[in-house]
Amino acid sequence: MNNTRFDTTCIGNAIVDVLSRIDDDFLTQENLVKNSMNLIDEARAEDLYSKMGSAVEISGGSAGNTAAGVASLGARSNYIGKVRNDQLGAIFAHDIRATGVNFETKMSEQGAATARSFVLITPDAHRTMNTYLGACIELGPDDIDPEIIAASAVTYMEGYLWDPDGGKAAFRKAAKISHEADQRVSLTLSDSFCVDRFRDEFIEFIDGGVDILFANEDEIKSLYQTDSLEVAIDIVRDKVEIACVTRSSEGSVILQGDTTVEVTADRSIDVEDTTGAGDLYAAGFLYGFTKGRSLAESGAIASIAAAEVISHIGARPAENLKDLIASRMG
Amino acid sequence: MNNTRFDTTCIGNAIVDVLSRIDDDFLTQENLVKNSMNLIDEARAEDLYSKMGSAVEISGGSAGNTAAGVASLGARSNYIGKVRNDQLGAIFAHDIRATGVNFETKMSEQGAATARSFVLITPDAHRTMNTYLGACIELGPDDIDPEIIAASAVTYMEGYLWDPDGGKAAFRKAAKISHEADQRVSLTLSDSFCVDRFRDEFIEFIDGGVDILFANEDEIKSLYQTDSLEVAIDIVRDKVEIACVTRSSEGSVILQGDTTVEVTADRSIDVEDTTGAGDLYAAGFLYGFTKGRSLAESGAIASIAAAEVISHIGARPAENLKDLIASRMG
Repeated sequence: MNNTRFDTTCIGNAIVDVLSRIDDDFLTQENLVKNSMNLIDEARAEDLYSKMGSAVEISGGSAGNTAAGVASLGARSNYIGKVRNDQLGAIFAHDIRATGVNFETKMSEQGAATARSFVLITPDAHRTMNTYLGACIELGPDDIDPEIIAASAVTYMEGYLWDPDGGKAAFRKAAKISHEADQRVSLTLSDSFCVDRFRDEFIEFIDGGVDILFANEDEIKSLYQTDSLEVAIDIVRDKVEIACVTRSSEGSVILQGDTTVEVTADRSIDVEDTTGAGDLYAAGFLYGFTKGRSLAESGAIASIAAAEVISHIGARPAENLKDLIASRMG
Repeated sequence: MNNTRFDTTCIGNAIVDVLSRIDDDFLTQENLVKNSMNLIDEARAEDLYSKMGSAVEISGGSAGNTAAGVASLGARSNYIGKVRNDQLGAIFAHDIRATGVNFETKMSEQGAATARSFVLITPDAHRTMNTYLGACIELGPDDIDPEIIAASAVTYMEGYLWDPDGGKAAFRKAAKISHEADQRVSLTLSDSFCVDRFRDEFIEFIDGGVDILFANEDEIKSLYQTDSLEVAIDIVRDKVEIACVTRSSEGSVILQGDTTVEVTADRSIDVEDTTGAGDLYAAGFLYGFTKGRSLAESGAIASIAAAEVISHIGARPAENLKDLIASRMG
């Protein structure tokens, strides 16, 4: 590797999560598909909020959660995402920095408010997200500092960032800089509806040079439009250096060339809220990868980090992950 | 009772809690006394926030928590408190209304931001509060609607409200209207430091006509400047119609004339965060009282409500208290 200042730079939509417990009837009434992420406009945000019960606000955002996870594991973590200079923006900035993440992205001074996602948690601990992108639409290529990307061993981006146009452009710029500096580009597909929205562009982007891909079973099957996980795995194996396919309580599969590593999930935990499971899996794997650990070790760290975050409300670690990993893996 | 529209109206400082886990060293470094409530100015708020770890935002405020508890128990609950028309103010207003509380207080359009309290939770689940009163200082007598107070069976006020001058005036106005309408006035002493600040005024106010007083052991001993709980109890017994003295895990003592009812606390619960214990005790007792339940029954409801709120993070009920009471008491 080159001179690196950060083990990972994560780029994503900077969002404050607004978590509320609901029953399944509420999803039916509001025409929401469980476990999906829905983009909503400001009017729908106000409408939905007025119908929701009391809530808890916690900093979130998929790549933000991953950045917090990487920092909690003890690695050098940087985050790029756009909030507005308002109260929720200040909360987001405080929280990500307080976990030890470097966060320098300039806040927007006008326009839409800091993004929020209404995370509706059903009694089965599953979450259905409704995201108002707000200030995230202001993120653009100017927010990508070439020196920082070139100095990051891995630049990791969330598929959700493809929704705002500026995010997509920032995404492409960062990938180009990363590769030119001989660093790694990593992508998470984020959500099967997100894959539906951008399938062709994602395939082109992956073929054009994603080194480490994260996807869950639904997302990878949607990407390659197949009902067979085996078929999807066979395809993706040839497309990227490493692919991590997560399967909830079934664990995950890590692919690298002809190598296949199966990782078990910890089923002993009491699941409170699945929000952030994929984000923390990515954090754990990228931590292991950048520290030169094997695929199996990196997968094990990923599983422990994911299990920690679903054992409580909120999508960022509540425990110090470095200590947790040390106690679990020695 | 007269024509009542609300079983209780709770008046207090409208605050968003910012909860963060810390270790005991942090309290030492910051010169903070565990379990105390400290008033801080804006500069100190910024300083302390910059030193704190990542946090969770939840609507709070002592009397706000009580109002939410009363509504969750199924009674008619009204709240009076001042937020600013900003993001945290919108969160506060949403959350208290979403629990079924009537909340009509006009938001301030300028001046200080919505109040927040940094609630620092140590590993022993105790909480030390640092409150920036912000927009709460704008609450005044004009926010007290005589018709609503006259139509509330109990008007309950937190001692903390004595800190801002306008709050004190609102407090006195509400008490006068309540008594003139032949309704009950209730007060919680809130905090032993608060009692220290206003001892003489509190004694005068209580003697002048508090019907139902809530205090914990430290507060009632501080009020009457005695080291003996027995002495304090003997004094307060003659001063108010009903006094509830809470003693954490030792349960509580309810006094009415010559009657003394001892209430046990549920020690089987796993305590996560003691924030809101006193607030929910008051909610449970006032619910029982306004529904004509006996002192012992009201005390039992109070204990169940308090136990629920300390079993999780946050100072408002996570479960529907009406259902919980039904399942526990039949």
